Amino acid sequence: MAQQAGLPPSSTALLTDHYELTMLASALHDASANRDCVFEVFARSLPEGRRFGVVAGTARVLEAITEFRFTDADLAHLESAGVVDRSTVDWLADFEFTGDIDGYPEGELYFPGSPIFTVHAPFAQAVLLETLVLSVFNHDCAVASAAARMSSAAKSRPLIEMGGRRTHEYAAVAAARAAYLAGFAATSNLEAGSRYGIPTRGTVAHAFMMLHDTEEDAFRAQVAALGTDTTLLVDTYDISVGIDTAIRVAGPELGAIRIDSGDVGVLARQAREQLDSLGARDTRIIVSGDLDEHAIAALRAEPVDAFGVGTSVVTGSGAPTANLVYKLVEVNGKPVTKRSEHKESRGGRKSAVRRLKSTGTAREEIVHPAGNPPNTGPHDQVVPTALMRGGRPVDDLSTLEDSRNRLRNRLVSLPWEGLKLSKGEPAIATVFG
Amino acid sequence: MAQQAGLPPSSTALLTDHYELTMLASALHDASANRDCVFEVFARSLPEGRRFGVVAGTARVLEAITEFRFTDADLAHLESAGVVDRSTVDWLADFEFTGDIDGYPEGELYFPGSPIFTVHAPFAQAVLLETLVLSVFNHDCAVASAAARMSSAAKSRPLIEMGGRRTHEYAAVAAARAAYLAGFAATSNLEAGSRYGIPTRGTVAHAFMMLHDTEEDAFRAQVAALGTDTTLLVDTYDISVGIDTAIRVAGPELGAIRIDSGDVGVLARQAREQLDSLGARDTRIIVSGDLDEHAIAALRAEPVDAFGVGTSVVTGSGAPTANLVYKLVEVNGKPVTKRSEHKESRGGRKSAVRRLKSTGTAREEIVHPAGNPPNTGPHDQVVPTALMRGGRPVDDLSTLEDSRNRLRNRLVSLPWEGLKLSKGEPAIATVFG
Repeated sequence: MAQQAGLPPSSTALLTDHYELTMLASALHDASANRDCVFEVFARSLPEGRRFGVVAGTARVLEAITEFRFTDADLAHLESAGVVDRSTVDWLADFEFTGDIDGYPEGELYFPGSPIFTVHAPFAQAVLLETLVLSVFNHDCAVASAAARMSSAAKSRPLIEMGGRRTHEYAAVAAARAAYLAGFAATSNLEAGSRYGIPTRGTVAHAFMMLHDTEEDAFRAQVAALGTDTTLLVDTYDISVGIDTAIRVAGPELGAIRIDSGDVGVLARQAREQLDSLGARDTRIIVSGDLDEHAIAALRAEPVDAFGVGTSVVTGSGAPTANLVYKLVEVNGKPVTKRSEHKESRGGRKSAVRRLKSTGTAREEIVHPAGNPPNTGPHDQVVPTALMRGGRPVDDLSTLEDSRNRLRNRLVSLPWEGLKLSKGEPAIATVFG
Repeated sequence: MAQQAGLPPSSTALLTDHYELTMLASALHDASANRDCVFEVFARSLPEGRRFGVVAGTARVLEAITEFRFTDADLAHLESAGVVDRSTVDWLADFEFTGDIDGYPEGELYFPGSPIFTVHAPFAQAVLLETLVLSVFNHDCAVASAAARMSSAAKSRPLIEMGGRRTHEYAAVAAARAAYLAGFAATSNLEAGSRYGIPTRGTVAHAFMMLHDTEEDAFRAQVAALGTDTTLLVDTYDISVGIDTAIRVAGPELGAIRIDSGDVGVLARQAREQLDSLGARDTRIIVSGDLDEHAIAALRAEPVDAFGVGTSVVTGSGAPTANLVYKLVEVNGKPVTKRSEHKESRGGRKSAVRRLKSTGTAREEIVHPAGNPPNTGPHDQVVPTALMRGGRPVDDLSTLEDSRNRLRNRLVSLPWEGLKLSKGEPAIATVFG
């Protein structure tokens, strides 16, 4: 407990389950630790009713693996707490990951069985990464998969992620990143702005209104500090009075108003009429307050210019985890499976080809043994790519903007029913070839 | 982006929403920033059907507030990204929180309207803490509230939290802490062990079994490294064969077996009979695999000695966020409310008394104006306590063990129907006195 109590640890190595270290200790004991292994991250199924998943977190995982080293404090804890014996601690002191990783690029779609992240390394190395890899992917994919549905529902109207307060303080930063990857225009989270270069947005909360003696005082203070191209929050008292006051204070050049409560569809229509009648035809209307993809879709016909989305996006809109697993599929070149499982668990290293129609619409996901690709047509795409070689990320890793663009294109490639918000089957079938 | 890309930031100050800083900038502009304010954290309602909430995260919040300082890198970002103007940046350079905080001690129960955390400071200080305070409480209370239901369902049988892989990598650490506070016996998360002194547990995953040529080889390697008081995972292939092999390898002194799949109730009964017939009467049976509070309760009659719980506890078992809010309730000594809200939002600084029967059973939660307590009976308890004075945590803050003990006692104080797992009303009514 040497680090400052309120700040996160200085290494990622203990973001790990106890059993990974006891497996290591046991495997070092009988030398099986050196066996050449392939572990695969995949989803046996999508969350109930979801039609696609979005790969997110890949860049975060690769960074975390690169930094996966046991500090002296980590090692001292493992020994003093009796997690592993001294010889295992000594082995860990020199640990660094030197293996190879292939996987779906960030922003790619995935379906049941898609091999989104394939780790090839000696058992001792690959087993230690299980929890960290799954934590990042299960969180980030859950958020991005929900966020992509919201982006699709909003069409071209911008979404602002503002849910940081509804989730763990560091999960909030990753959630902002995942939402941006999935098409959100901006976030309220300043750390995500600083760390990932994501645009941040915000003006005032109701507290600022209530701090002042009158709504007008509050608007005047805000406009004096932030200019007329700001967003005035008009629903603290009476919305209609609030809009009148807002335009009186800021003039018709006011940037936007925000409505955060009530039946926002009806209120937005009334607000649009009122703003227009006041000559504020370019003043935009931003709505927020418990919106999810269904509410966003329902507001499509309303004069809403942007959406603020909180709880639903950071909690995966009903599916807070992606339920991805990290499974050993190959040992010393031979496929392995857990025999008590049914056929949805397939041994052996795999790759995947996405079959596309000539129009670019996806037809099916072929998951096949890595060395044995199917015949491909001219439009089919090999999905996995090299992500890490010898423990170093490859040079041409996707940037966040690349991943965002990739997802935008991939969503267009889905069969039309794949973007329906209702519950259904995966948009394309996975075929094990 | 000066810090290592995969590690969290070195300050907590940007775990904040953009609008808190623009509010600050605007309030500095008209000097309302100095107004004496009281903000209150409370839940308008519990998650649907929940009968109580558990306060968790208080110690984490207080630590985060103590460390809430803007680093040079933070300030440079805020200026270069245009979040606030230079004079606000200069003001932030000297920021530290110097206010007072009262609240429910960690491990206390809460109900709708309970003032669990009351911040008293100038607006400029208190407003900046909103997102960080809510992130910690909304996450930790959600996990602890779900975990307490599981503890209650498990009665005296130990629960092991093993869900870190299903949530963000740092949320996992906080979730382990919240689950331990709520009665879990241990966690799989090593960082939680190192940081908070929580017991950690783990042995092997199926990957370890599949790494070896035979189940027997795997068991032998594990017992050689970890001793016979370990837990052998018997469901990789055939459970009945697995148990025979386990006892043959480890002897009847084997510590435990773990079953992670299938109808664990039936399997546990069969396993108990088989273990007993092999003379392994003291070998415990640990079950895991998609357990939630309902599954745990359903296993009460089965010979299960301990439960491993993953996804459901770290995702709040259907309620991944506590929906706590941080509301301005008083300015310069005068109550304020958002007039568009209904009566569930009450202005003014508040405190609370829990009325208890002579038997110690809770009767109701009285939330009252801070300076105007109700008449109390001999068994009634004032709930909030001092947490921070002048920006420093008070000396006698609860330790994690204190909080754990407090919650254990408080759960006993609930009316019996308050511990029912079915959906219902809050266990006691909140009365605004």
